[in-house]
Amino acid sequence: MTSKRMIERLSLYRRLLTGLMAEKAQSAFSHQLSTATDVTPAQVRRDMMGIGFSGNPSRGYDVHDLHDAITQVLDAPTVQEVALIGIGNLGRAILSYFSGRHDRLAITAAFDTDPEKAGRVIHGCRCYPIDTMASQIRERDIHVAILAVPADSAQSATDILVGSGIHGILNFAPLRLRTPGSIFVEDMDLTTSLEKVAFFARRRTQP
Amino acid sequence: MTSKRMIERLSLYRRLLTGLMAEKAQSAFSHQLSTATDVTPAQVRRDMMGIGFSGNPSRGYDVHDLHDAITQVLDAPTVQEVALIGIGNLGRAILSYFSGRHDRLAITAAFDTDPEKAGRVIHGCRCYPIDTMASQIRERDIHVAILAVPADSAQSATDILVGSGIHGILNFAPLRLRTPGSIFVEDMDLTTSLEKVAFFARRRTQP
Repeated sequence: MTSKRMIERLSLYRRLLTGLMAEKAQSAFSHQLSTATDVTPAQVRRDMMGIGFSGNPSRGYDVHDLHDAITQVLDAPTVQEVALIGIGNLGRAILSYFSGRHDRLAITAAFDTDPEKAGRVIHGCRCYPIDTMASQIRERDIHVAILAVPADSAQSATDILVGSGIHGILNFAPLRLRTPGSIFVEDMDLTTSLEKVAFFARRRTQP
Repeated sequence: MTSKRMIERLSLYRRLLTGLMAEKAQSAFSHQLSTATDVTPAQVRRDMMGIGFSGNPSRGYDVHDLHDAITQVLDAPTVQEVALIGIGNLGRAILSYFSGRHDRLAITAAFDTDPEKAGRVIHGCRCYPIDTMASQIRERDIHVAILAVPADSAQSATDILVGSGIHGILNFAPLRLRTPGSIFVEDMDLTTSLEKVAFFARRRTQP
């Protein structure tokens, strides 16, 4: 029940449900939920069974109950803290993007090698010098990090993160990080993604 | 030979080869290339056959020749122009990230609803008012767009892009775009990715 793809789908179902709640909808059918992802309604029903949630075939799933059930699976019971490493253009955009967006996930500490940034508060997040990163992550019991540093310092930052108790990394640096198997790494690879889009756009342009 | 995953792998192989070229390496073996992705050396060899490239089993692949062969597949023969829609924090970070990074892909026009931004040049890219988007994309024969607008204006922007001849969209807006099947869309979903990392980090923290 806890494959990467399933967790992605739960996140996408929940986003759709949030939209339905805003529209005051009471129920959602598996075929509606399937539009949020690229799966079949049957897969939606399997996912719901996987998290132990059942719907009435004629009335659909209760929107609020299902939203709560997914939240129980996806989110921590209290706010889960996230550390951001690198406060350049991308790091600041990430801070702006996540600022106040999530109930249970919050970037609460940002680190940079630039001493000018230490002590500043950017989009609600306090910035610290990079040499306090290991001790703060350990003391504050932070287990999730977003890596937004240049490629040439990404591996050394990762080694410190792993040594400080980080268990999951959202990596924006354009390289494959070397980490122990116990660390979950998700790559956000802008170059590879844009190359892919450009490739398929070109094929569609030249029939 | 042209699945999404294969194109991703070619992009990652090329990045590794660029690193090897910087280190003056002459040859690369499939097991080295497999470290750039999550596949086996056998899959690397199938990918190389897929693009019609052959290596000598005892000497490996020639680093320069393979780099060129992958470039022939991945890149356009001349620079492929990319339009950026949305010049907020994220849009500016994307401009900064791609500025001068790629030989054959360049963001050459950025669009925003804020009239203050029109006429400015940000990280080397000229900014234009959003109401010139359709005509410029059409006249300049641009087929690739990066969408970095808020969720509530993403679908209307997409409709204009599709009507203007865009064939591929790299989408940073947190929603599933409705597009014709002929349009290639790649989602860069920061929230879903961070939720996934947080979920798996938590499972690793609580054994």
